[in-house]
This record gives sequence, structure tokens and C-alpha cells, in this order.
Amino acid sequence: MRMRHKKNLEPRLEEVREYFIPAVAEDLNYANAGKEQHFFDFAELFGREAPVYLEIGSGKGQFICELALQHPENNYIAVEKVSDVIVMGAEKVKKAGLTNVLFARCGAEYLPSFIPPHSIAGIYLNFSPPYPKNRHEAHRLTNRRFLDIYRDLLAPGAEIHQKTDNMHYFEYSIAEFSQAGYALKNISLDLHNSDFEGNIMTEYETRFVGLGQPIYRLEAYLPEE
Amino acid sequence: MRMRHKKNLEPRLEEVREYFIPAVAEDLNYANAGKEQHFFDFAELFGREAPVYLEIGSGKGQFICELALQHPENNYIAVEKVSDVIVMGAEKVKKAGLTNVLFARCGAEYLPSFIPPHSIAGIYLNFSPPYPKNRHEAHRLTNRRFLDIYRDLLAPGAEIHQKTDNMHYFEYSIAEFSQAGYALKNISLDLHNSDFEGNIMTEYETRFVGLGQPIYRLEAYLPEE
Repeated sequence: MRMRHKKNLEPRLEEVREYFIPAVAEDLNYANAGKEQHFFDFAELFGREAPVYLEIGSGKGQFICELALQHPENNYIAVEKVSDVIVMGAEKVKKAGLTNVLFARCGAEYLPSFIPPHSIAGIYLNFSPPYPKNRHEAHRLTNRRFLDIYRDLLAPGAEIHQKTDNMHYFEYSIAEFSQAGYALKNISLDLHNSDFEGNIMTEYETRFVGLGQPIYRLEAYLPEE
Repeated sequence: MRMRHKKNLEPRLEEVREYFIPAVAEDLNYANAGKEQHFFDFAELFGREAPVYLEIGSGKGQFICELALQHPENNYIAVEKVSDVIVMGAEKVKKAGLTNVLFARCGAEYLPSFIPPHSIAGIYLNFSPPYPKNRHEAHRLTNRRFLDIYRDLLAPGAEIHQKTDNMHYFEYSIAEFSQAGYALKNISLDLHNSDFEGNIMTEYETRFVGLGQPIYRLEAYLPEE
């Protein structure tokens, strides 16, 4: 979803500056990203040791905010490249008084520059843009290129949880995950008419469920070698 | 689907005797099956060398009959354990004058007793009974137990093609295939509204499509080690 650039974006970002990971939010040299590695020190960033989960494409932040509220024992990094949207997420987190969510303003391809290998306890992919045209396939967040990146970020036993309302994107994702060596479990082809409990809704999901469209969900993990 | 036992089953079977693989159709000692191995000699059975495909759970035979008509270059073995149904398949094949289909009256668990390892060019699983109750899971033809059997039957590069109208069975199948080390491709969550071409309908499928229900389909293969 494209949004018009918010006029007051800069002052709003300033108000939530403390919720952004500085290296990514402000000092990121995109030309060097992916080449030079400066790994986050999670304990320093969050001020404590705790499992770190990523949401990649966190949008307006409703999901990560609710998840972080329900799981104060975990730390969360919300990754989103659209400034106009990520600022809304950071505002939500600030308003909720959460101390276990930080934001990284970048694309998923830059994560290996900052995140130590095999340090992530889980990844959430919620309603990522499906990029339906074949020529845009490389942008899909379940493209093989990204699945290989996630493989290097995930700790042993960690899982990726994906939700989407787009049937063809889900078909594609199942194939990509399985071909990249992930195993799948808890697949749902109609999440809101399944026995899955504890679903946390995103902004998109609320809208699509209201339209009566099915939501697709899967969990992917890397089998032990 | 349960059918009442046909009164005239035996004479009907006698009429299509030549389309049954003798060891399986008549002389099968179920107590020994799976223990003693007497491998088929495909060239002798079919009277020629050609790739051999299996349909497991061939029901009334509409699918295998049409597939064999379209692909005279291949040999097919239709596996079905219900006598009242398999006889109808054999009658169809006889009526069509096909020489590239033979029938094996047994459950899938007995196949390794007769089929040489890694000799099968492909397997079709069409509208297998979903066995929705958890305690019957072991009977599902995409249960891990069967997927491991298929693994040993399939030639390098061979594929399993599955269709079903049962959403939960399809969810289950995706998970089982991926956890058993298969990769998936050409997944369709609504086959009859997809761009898949050349679909061959089964008896069940014709009925379910008529009801407007989606048909699910996948292709599974074993990645090269």
C-alpha cells in the first residue's frame, strides 16, 4: 500500500527516536549495507538479555505491539522500510509504554549486515506485498533469496510464521519454503475458521476478514541436519 | 465411500482377469506381504519396456483410463484395495482396449513387496480418503509412513501428484510431504480457477466441482541429495 508522504514526518520521527535502532534508522549507508557487517549487540540495545524475534514488514505496527504486550519476556525488532508507516508503529509502541520493541527502517536484504548469524528466535511475515507479477518475484519476502537470508539469521529450532490473504502468494510461499529445505507445520487455508487459537490480527487482516476472505497461515522451520 | 458388495463380483472379475497382476489379485498372501519380496518384472507384465506410473487408490478408474489413453508411451499400475470398485476400473480399461494399464488389488503398504526399489516414474494420489479423525491418521495416503514407502519406490526425478477436495487433508499433506523431505511445486489451492492445463478429472472431482468446491493440487518430488 502506497501512502502519501506525511508532511510532518520528520518531527514525528524525532518524537519516537528512542524506539529506532540508530545505525539502521539514521546512519545507514545503503551503499555499504550488506557488505560491511556491524552486528547489533541485542543486550545493549534492549538493556537486557532475552530472545529476539523479528517482524519483517511490520507496517503500522498493530501486530508487533499486541505481540510484545502479550510476551513481555521477549524482545522484538520491527523491520519496515516505509518511513511513513514505521513511524506509526513506533508511536503505537511509545503510547503503549513498551520497552521490548525496537524498529529498524530497512529492507530485509540488509538484515545480515546487523544481525548476528543464528541469533533470532523467530520471524513473522504478515501480509507481505504479494508482488503478483512474475518479473517482481525477487521482491517477495518468501522468495528463495530471502529464505536463504532467514536461514542464516534463525537460531536452531526457530520458526517463521507467515500469514497472507493472497492465495497465489501462499501457493508460491509453500513451494519456496519446501524447495529451500524448510519443513512446514500448522498450515491453515482458512485461519479464521480453523481451531488455531491466539491469533493476533494486523490492520490488513481486520479489513480482509471483514470482507469474508480466507486468511492463509503457515509455520516453517529448518529440520535438524 | 462404502459400496454394497456386488452380487456378481466374482464372474465380473473373471471377465477382466487379464488386467490384474496375478500375484496381487489372487495369490497374495496378506500374512506374508511386506516380508517376502517377489518383485514384478514390468517388462514381462506389460510385454514391453516403458516408464511405469502408479495410481494409488484408483477407485472406479476414470482417471487412469483417460491418462493411459493420452499417454500410450507409458505403462500404468492402478492400485486399489476395494474389489467392488477396482473391477469397474478394469472393465473401463478393457472396454477402451488399453494395453498399458494393469490393476493391483492391495493396499499401498504392500507395494514394496512387489515393486522394485526406485523403479516408478511417478505416483498419482487422487481424492484419497481424508480420514479426518486423528486416530485414523495412519491410514491417510500422505501419512509419513506411506511417504517413506513412496520414497523407496520412486525413480530419481519422479514426482507425486496429489489432488483432493478436502482442505484439512491438503493442509496435512503439505506438512507431511515437507517434513518427510519432499519439495513441493505447482501448488494450486483452486485448481479449476487456476491456469493449470490438461487436468484429468476423476469421478469424485466431477461431482465436487459441480458443487462449486475448490480442488487442491500439489506436486511433490525428492530434491537431489
